[in-house]
Amino acid sequence: MDSDELRAWLRLALTPGVGNATARKLLAAFGSAQAIFEQSSATLQQIGSDKLANSLRSEPSGLAVQRQTTMDWLQAGDDRRIAVLGDPAYPPVLLDIEDPPLMLYMLGTLAISILSATEKIAKSLAIVGSRNPTPQGESNARQFAKAFGGAGICVVSGLALGIDGAAHDGAMLGGGETIAVVGTGLDRVYPKRHLDLAHRIARQGMIISEFPLGTPPLTANFPKRNRIISGLSRGTLVVEAALQSGSLITARLAAEQGKEVFAIPGSIHSPQSRGCHALIKQGAKLVEVAQDVLEELRLAPGASGAAPAALQAPPEGDEADEAAGTRDDPLLAALGFDAVSLDALQARTGLDTAHLQAGLLELELDGQVVRLPGGLFQRMAAG
Amino acid sequence: MDSDELRAWLRLALTPGVGNATARKLLAAFGSAQAIFEQSSATLQQIGSDKLANSLRSEPSGLAVQRQTTMDWLQAGDDRRIAVLGDPAYPPVLLDIEDPPLMLYMLGTLAISILSATEKIAKSLAIVGSRNPTPQGESNARQFAKAFGGAGICVVSGLALGIDGAAHDGAMLGGGETIAVVGTGLDRVYPKRHLDLAHRIARQGMIISEFPLGTPPLTANFPKRNRIISGLSRGTLVVEAALQSGSLITARLAAEQGKEVFAIPGSIHSPQSRGCHALIKQGAKLVEVAQDVLEELRLAPGASGAAPAALQAPPEGDEADEAAGTRDDPLLAALGFDAVSLDALQARTGLDTAHLQAGLLELELDGQVVRLPGGLFQRMAAG
Repeated sequence: MDSDELRAWLRLALTPGVGNATARKLLAAFGSAQAIFEQSSATLQQIGSDKLANSLRSEPSGLAVQRQTTMDWLQAGDDRRIAVLGDPAYPPVLLDIEDPPLMLYMLGTLAISILSATEKIAKSLAIVGSRNPTPQGESNARQFAKAFGGAGICVVSGLALGIDGAAHDGAMLGGGETIAVVGTGLDRVYPKRHLDLAHRIARQGMIISEFPLGTPPLTANFPKRNRIISGLSRGTLVVEAALQSGSLITARLAAEQGKEVFAIPGSIHSPQSRGCHALIKQGAKLVEVAQDVLEELRLAPGASGAAPAALQAPPEGDEADEAAGTRDDPLLAALGFDAVSLDALQARTGLDTAHLQAGLLELELDGQVVRLPGGLFQRMAAG
Repeated sequence: MDSDELRAWLRLALTPGVGNATARKLLAAFGSAQAIFEQSSATLQQIGSDKLANSLRSEPSGLAVQRQTTMDWLQAGDDRRIAVLGDPAYPPVLLDIEDPPLMLYMLGTLAISILSATEKIAKSLAIVGSRNPTPQGESNARQFAKAFGGAGICVVSGLALGIDGAAHDGAMLGGGETIAVVGTGLDRVYPKRHLDLAHRIARQGMIISEFPLGTPPLTANFPKRNRIISGLSRGTLVVEAALQSGSLITARLAAEQGKEVFAIPGSIHSPQSRGCHALIKQGAKLVEVAQDVLEELRLAPGASGAAPAALQAPPEGDEADEAAGTRDDPLLAALGFDAVSLDALQARTGLDTAHLQAGLLELELDGQVVRLPGGLFQRMAAG
């Protein structure tokens, strides 16, 4: 893209009153961004309102600065690229969504080769969820992402705190690549706590934004970027989500885009599982292990597509070893897998406070138990 | 049922080589249990094998003792009854299952009145699950059963340790009645630890068995009784179950009988939740609260049957007000379609609590908003 072309696209993006839908209409009418700005007021008025025509005829303030910033950013490395609608570098899958972004800023090793980016995106899965997950939820996100990464699946998420961060991290731990779709300009990192993570992602995947450089973290932009997360992915896995959360928006968008939605269940008493349960009630696939997702989407290496026949249970009998693995430690058995208070544990085990605290501390140091806010304890799954 | 009739039914039940299916064939051919034993060998051979005819012509050993035991048991109180196929006291719903029991022994206050037993069974739900539940699972069983009992629903289960016991107990705590379908003769209680519970059930419901008095706990009989648990109930709720467990058999039988199956989800790391997750994957309804079950089966007092459409949210961001019907009422627009807390609504609308409460009440009375547990409000999708 040459400098004049970039200037026209930036001008289109920055013109007040021109949203994605209007921009697409103008592009369809005049063939290119540059051509739009060569039209007379009269011609423009045939497409839109007088107000729109006026808006398009006057240069938006700050355009020159924005253009310089963007040129400088592009020239600062070979791992950055801007793809506009119609470019070969524009991910084809995003053309299938209802509101494809006008411009995509991409930064990272995956931005270097259009071919490898396209290949990776064709085999990608989104993992999203709460910014305030339970420790188990965060661990689940990391483990699923690690398994996906290990299976050569690119993990797409939103760089947010909590589940998103664990998903990016897990994918890279598994040796896979990961894509972070962010709600700010690519020269900003939000949240600040993920600055190091963002740098790692740029080295093992890429960061994508539809927002111009310099765009600060604005509340309205975060739900907007969710359609890109689901749009890039074959399916979306929600790890933990409260009933009111952006993750449910991403899941809804995925379903609207005809993509599969997966959700991890949890305790009926955990607010962070309510969103997942609501999704399952509405048709999302309940998943327990990463393999469930890979098989459903036929992404598993050598997958047969056959699901285990869980209901072929033998006749009832001695269930003594039903809960194998909890027998070894009575305190672990008493904990179950839900968050439990010290009082409840005392009632269940009959142990006095001192012994209980000592036992819990030991399990905590061993990584088998975590201490939650509000004086609650929760058992962590092995691995 | 007079003494001769009872004798004939017991003889039919005790004759070697005569299972339920053969017994039903013989009853259909000759009209009554007594008539079977009045037939000649030649006539009997037209229905079954020579061996069967011989078996039917010779009195099974122990018949006299069994008859006396049964007569004594029946005469020991007015809260006991034997219902045979075709009796007015035989629960009509059991005629719909594939293998209806030949004889039903019933003990408890519900056995006194055929009418009240039939009424209770018409509004009953099964709760089943692991004999080794987690503490939270056992508490969930008790809480769900208590809610069912409080709603006038009779809870059916199997008197086993763990979930079954908690379900019976919870139903009675809620002031409801409960039915225990057992795998032994009614003069035996298994497990022994539930002796006191069995006595309480006899006072606030009934215990049912298809097995002759004196039948000890035999491994093969427990899965057999599961078809009666599901057969008596409108639906079956599995609270916690390992992958290989009798509860999954009950759930499968319920599904085969065209009954609804419900399952409570849990941690993906809890072995006791795996069975529930397998059921949900295969189409069982995920439930989080007792109301979910009652509404699905239209057993809730004053239930409309309409579930909240939590995911039918309008697109977020500046397109939100393009959704039809949100322009008229700013409060509806602020609600979106997700569950919203009062605090969040206040932040969105800037209204004070009094005005907000008044507006929500109006929308609620108008059927446009529902009040959810946890102080949440949710907009109902139109239509």
